[in-house]
Amino acid sequence: MDATIIMPIGTLHEHVEAIFRKAGLNDIQSAALARVIVAGERDACKSHGIYRIEGALRTVKAGKVKPDAVPELMPREHGAIVRVNARHGFANPAFELGLPVLAERARVSGIAALVINDCTHFSALWPEVEAITVHGLAGLAMCPSYSTVAPAGGNKPLLGTNPFAFGWPRAGKDPYVFDFATSVAARGEIELHRRAGKALPEGWAIDAQGNLTTDPEAALAGAMLPFGGHKGSAISTMIELLAGVMIGDLTSPEVLDYLGTTTLAPPHGELIIAFSPEAFAAGRPGNPFERAEVLFDAIVDQGARLPSLRRYVARAKSQAEGITLTASETEQLERLLALGLDAVS
Amino acid sequence: MDATIIMPIGTLHEHVEAIFRKAGLNDIQSAALARVIVAGERDACKSHGIYRIEGALRTVKAGKVKPDAVPELMPREHGAIVRVNARHGFANPAFELGLPVLAERARVSGIAALVINDCTHFSALWPEVEAITVHGLAGLAMCPSYSTVAPAGGNKPLLGTNPFAFGWPRAGKDPYVFDFATSVAARGEIELHRRAGKALPEGWAIDAQGNLTTDPEAALAGAMLPFGGHKGSAISTMIELLAGVMIGDLTSPEVLDYLGTTTLAPPHGELIIAFSPEAFAAGRPGNPFERAEVLFDAIVDQGARLPSLRRYVARAKSQAEGITLTASETEQLERLLALGLDAVS
Repeated sequence: MDATIIMPIGTLHEHVEAIFRKAGLNDIQSAALARVIVAGERDACKSHGIYRIEGALRTVKAGKVKPDAVPELMPREHGAIVRVNARHGFANPAFELGLPVLAERARVSGIAALVINDCTHFSALWPEVEAITVHGLAGLAMCPSYSTVAPAGGNKPLLGTNPFAFGWPRAGKDPYVFDFATSVAARGEIELHRRAGKALPEGWAIDAQGNLTTDPEAALAGAMLPFGGHKGSAISTMIELLAGVMIGDLTSPEVLDYLGTTTLAPPHGELIIAFSPEAFAAGRPGNPFERAEVLFDAIVDQGARLPSLRRYVARAKSQAEGITLTASETEQLERLLALGLDAVS
Repeated sequence: MDATIIMPIGTLHEHVEAIFRKAGLNDIQSAALARVIVAGERDACKSHGIYRIEGALRTVKAGKVKPDAVPELMPREHGAIVRVNARHGFANPAFELGLPVLAERARVSGIAALVINDCTHFSALWPEVEAITVHGLAGLAMCPSYSTVAPAGGNKPLLGTNPFAFGWPRAGKDPYVFDFATSVAARGEIELHRRAGKALPEGWAIDAQGNLTTDPEAALAGAMLPFGGHKGSAISTMIELLAGVMIGDLTSPEVLDYLGTTTLAPPHGELIIAFSPEAFAAGRPGNPFERAEVLFDAIVDQGARLPSLRRYVARAKSQAEGITLTASETEQLERLLALGLDAVS
């Protein structure tokens, strides 16, 4: 087994930020990317941790994202829509620019939307909705991806894995947060089954002829299936409409056409909606934050788990003890820092 | 087999409206209820058609909804929240009162929410989102129900069947609309299996001990399951938070506590969100309505169906030929018209 070292969260952040700077990303892009990648690693969410650095660098090297982009807050034309143009950089610095304005609008209007256009998105959506809860607001986030999922009843990739995330603030506690793909499984999970020579569970995917398959090779040549049959398929279609078509940005088939591959981070837009529970509950009986706790207690009391619990447990450990990295992970970080974009093909 | 008669849509509307008036509902309640019930029957959505009249009357007779309520548009305190208090009447006239204000706010603010408080809801949600699309807007609607569904990983009823509906306008065509329960199956479907002495499909329900069951009796004594495992459970929990707790209205466990039964229509609130695609797409390339058609074509071209198709086919037939009712259905309508509230226990 690999030797491990333990690194404080702040030290890992410095390393990751330095890698992005070395690769030619500007300060804004480097800092925002390092924050979200370190948050993934901190929460033991390995698929969105330092593993993602290479993919981001490959996307830069392929010329599909601008390393020196400066996101721009656009003039507000409609009272409750905040729009940030990422200027073809990553979504994360654009979100950080828009968040305080979104929060202010949500408090004034009760509900407000943040549209991010012309961005490349490669992280999970939970950092966005969690950041909204810090402002005492509830938040929804969604975005397309690239065509890898067949609509229910169909037989070809069309929809993306289109993630859907929601957050609700909890005073003095980790927020209620969920974030999931609207496909049954992530594409990476199918790839892992292929490498391990294992059959897929029933219902994950169809082959190129549109028949259900448990063969990972056939699944990768075919399409993934949406979660929950026609219901998940409908939600995924809604995400294409609201967070692609409606905001004037790419849908999953358009992303795939543009990118020509599913191995780079996808360019598209993102839609984030913030709700002020105080505004919505104004004049009504009961405190919404206290009432939400009654619901959470009832869920936990019957032995069910709240989503994100595993992440929060890992986070507390990372905050107390630092982040555990294997020797090959630290070597990889050193290699990326030394070589910059030359480290990736 | 039952003899059938064919009745024009307008005639059925007059009959249903007259039944509600006879039962003591005021003009506003009677007309709005008749509209939504006739729409269900017209679309061959029998579970939300004239079958629902008795349940509405039983709820009136039990004193759990006010037959003479006049919904009230509340003063607007936050720019993008429109609030209607149903004054303990049905949700439908409250929605009709709030809709034009919601549409106007969505056009100005880009996004707006309609909160309906203190209402009794017994219809599907597709009439709401479809009515929003008539204004050229996209719409989301959701509400709690009563505790009949266990959260994923739990073993007791807590969540409601919490419906989630979405609509997108299509010029010259029936809108893209979906509306589904966040439980795997509707409670009525389990009851139908029980009456037919048939086993349930796997995964619909658990027994009172929390074990998976295919026995309808055991399922009715236990709990239904959310669709899509932990993902559907998370969406259902989100609906309790946004459309119950946040808007200062009852959650599904609170509804069950208040009502003491699942055989009457549930009192709670409803949350409806309207989006102006024109506002969201402003300044961006492409027309969102035309781009949505490209997506719909791609879904249909691979043999998948758009949701609500079955309803729209039935609707076209009803509009052309009238609505087909069985002799026992027309007898029941006559009995309800003659007896009013005395027709129900």
